[in-house]
Amino acid sequence: MNTTLDDTHNPALRSWVESANADGSDFPIQNLPFGRFRQPGETAWRIGVAIGDQVLDLRAAGLIAHGDMNRLMQATPPERRALRQAISAGLREGSAQRAAFEPALLAQAAVELGLPCEVGDYTDFYVGIHHATEVGRQFRPDNPLLPNYKWVPIGYHGRSSTLLPSGAAFHRPMGQVKAADAAQPVLAPCARLDIELELGLFIGQPNPQGQPVPMAEAEQHLFGVTLFNDWSARDLQAWEYQPLGPFLAKNFASTVSPWMVTMEALEPFRQPFTRPAGDPDPLPYLDSPGNRARGAIDVRMEVVLQTARMAREGHAGDVIAHSNFAEAAYWTAAQLVAHHTVNGCALRAGDLLGSGTLSGATKDQCGSLLELTTGGKHPVTLSNGEQRGFLEDGDSVILRGWCEGEGARRIGFGECRGTVLPVFDGA
Amino acid sequence: MNTTLDDTHNPALRSWVESANADGSDFPIQNLPFGRFRQPGETAWRIGVAIGDQVLDLRAAGLIAHGDMNRLMQATPPERRALRQAISAGLREGSAQRAAFEPALLAQAAVELGLPCEVGDYTDFYVGIHHATEVGRQFRPDNPLLPNYKWVPIGYHGRSSTLLPSGAAFHRPMGQVKAADAAQPVLAPCARLDIELELGLFIGQPNPQGQPVPMAEAEQHLFGVTLFNDWSARDLQAWEYQPLGPFLAKNFASTVSPWMVTMEALEPFRQPFTRPAGDPDPLPYLDSPGNRARGAIDVRMEVVLQTARMAREGHAGDVIAHSNFAEAAYWTAAQLVAHHTVNGCALRAGDLLGSGTLSGATKDQCGSLLELTTGGKHPVTLSNGEQRGFLEDGDSVILRGWCEGEGARRIGFGECRGTVLPVFDGA
Repeated sequence: MNTTLDDTHNPALRSWVESANADGSDFPIQNLPFGRFRQPGETAWRIGVAIGDQVLDLRAAGLIAHGDMNRLMQATPPERRALRQAISAGLREGSAQRAAFEPALLAQAAVELGLPCEVGDYTDFYVGIHHATEVGRQFRPDNPLLPNYKWVPIGYHGRSSTLLPSGAAFHRPMGQVKAADAAQPVLAPCARLDIELELGLFIGQPNPQGQPVPMAEAEQHLFGVTLFNDWSARDLQAWEYQPLGPFLAKNFASTVSPWMVTMEALEPFRQPFTRPAGDPDPLPYLDSPGNRARGAIDVRMEVVLQTARMAREGHAGDVIAHSNFAEAAYWTAAQLVAHHTVNGCALRAGDLLGSGTLSGATKDQCGSLLELTTGGKHPVTLSNGEQRGFLEDGDSVILRGWCEGEGARRIGFGECRGTVLPVFDGA
Repeated sequence: MNTTLDDTHNPALRSWVESANADGSDFPIQNLPFGRFRQPGETAWRIGVAIGDQVLDLRAAGLIAHGDMNRLMQATPPERRALRQAISAGLREGSAQRAAFEPALLAQAAVELGLPCEVGDYTDFYVGIHHATEVGRQFRPDNPLLPNYKWVPIGYHGRSSTLLPSGAAFHRPMGQVKAADAAQPVLAPCARLDIELELGLFIGQPNPQGQPVPMAEAEQHLFGVTLFNDWSARDLQAWEYQPLGPFLAKNFASTVSPWMVTMEALEPFRQPFTRPAGDPDPLPYLDSPGNRARGAIDVRMEVVLQTARMAREGHAGDVIAHSNFAEAAYWTAAQLVAHHTVNGCALRAGDLLGSGTLSGATKDQCGSLLELTTGGKHPVTLSNGEQRGFLEDGDSVILRGWCEGEGARRIGFGECRGTVLPVFDGA
């Protein structure tokens, strides 16, 4: 028995919001993820919790006294659990609070869902060892997995100004590209536009600058998890990335799903974290008994590609890959927090840690087209006969994620959707 | 005659604030840089302009109606010039507004100066070609200056959560280091703590995501310039930086000077921008007649090192290097904006572009100890006999900058100061 579970996790629990009880709903009463929404004509965001196909306005329901998600995220774990208990109690079948909560419910379909919080800094990690190995093979054939990989949770800073909410379209980027046999680069539209299947880990409690967060406390600083697509321009990346890392190849757009699934909701899906036999133990600052016992999270994910033709023809798209966080990741969420802060770096409420591309070991588990098509050399054939090496204009990519397991109610992450527009034409 | 100059640049102009007229003042009436300050006990920042040893509270003087620097920075160039005119007119000798402005003056020594604005994203560039070549030689002896350097203004994202105002101390970072002959890394205090002499370029007018800023408009998006010290942990950097670039080696602290010297104030110090004979022309999206005619800015800088012993003994420190932006930089400020946005990346008011380390061609012009001491191999001997390969606990580093030239009043940047504390001890 997992002693961290409480009655909010009881799989038999039902809500008076009927859509939350439907089989396959991403948002049963056991989930209760946090996001920001507004109604048509509003400029300010409000804080909501997804329940079935509805969103509960937390302030309107009397559960909080403000509308600032980043402030809410600074709460301590006991405060967070208390709020979860209150939301769960009010939404349960037979709750006396139903009359008070009902006016605070809106249909998700009738509101705009934004980025789940204000993101100060966004860091992208690289925890997918299968991804790191395959990408390394393509960029550095003689040296695929670098010597630091199994010691250092490799990460770098990304850009928060270009984070997009799910559903937003973006222009194909222009950039410098250089053919291997060309004497000089040219400015051209990206011809190798790719996805990266990631999870987004959001910081809750901040740490003061100069004060590292030890492993035993690392998870207390995590608020929740979203799906995350770190769109990538592979041809720009190959030419620009030495010696300081990816820059314009990444910072034109990254898409975040609307709902932060809380660490509390993920409790039933924790797993032991182990490393392959023969691999080195993590250094002590990245190791803890708790991390070994339950550092991994069993999140299942899939990538759906819907071309413009599919959209026109009412086709929802093809699943082109599926993966699992626990299997793909060489480092845990707690290790990312401990490593990120070991030098005193300050993490603030709302800061985002991208996991890195979560590819599994096999071809059908590739979290990027770079891997799935071996750099475009072996295009994937879709169910309607179309082929893709990399993304074309009009393509939409939808990430989905969920957790399921014995003795627990399935919970989902909603979807993370983005669409490629042609290069900006100056109009 | 530079037709972009107006009467605010007249070198004969004097202020009724007498300290502004002193020879050698960084803040004569021709400068008028913007910063944020507060008085003891206040939590909110106010917008101020430095004049002599005073700061003019812009709202108290009736010049603006709010206290939000980032909002002010979004102004168009004509709006900015109009505000500069109004400030200049009110501060001139004989101004009828003296009675209205005088109550809005505070001594700089009596207020706290903060970061000059809220920084959303911070990007660090790498425009110092002498620095790139020498660092490249140390990290990659066989391959010092990479093939992309003369085509791509190399940059990467840094971290805004750990930007420090001038005067703040910070703890020496811990991190993973690996000796060349060691089988595995260890966690240890950084033993190769370094400075980077940079300028900070602040974005004013934003560009919408997806819409590149062309070269001809790039400077309209720049608000002003500060000094910037991007503290670096060289031993952490060497082990972590492949393949995604520097991370913990940089994100523990970066120090920003308090005053943004505006693009308008820098007008008299613009110079033609040329490349060494034989170097390639920039690609068209990084080239413009205006950039060739006046893309460079003649900013002079120096680095002062004051050890703990010097501080105890009342010694202000030694100048260990001096440099010049126009001579050190291979790319102009306008090129950085055009490149950063060519892929559609959105720059917001208050976003910070670090120039990269601005080393000159000679040993006395090194903007980092890595270069000055050749990786610590040849320590510098200070005037009191102390030696430094890299920084020791208690060391303070002060950057200074100024512009001067025929027919113009000298203007200064103030100072950018930071002090190294011992490793955080958990207390």
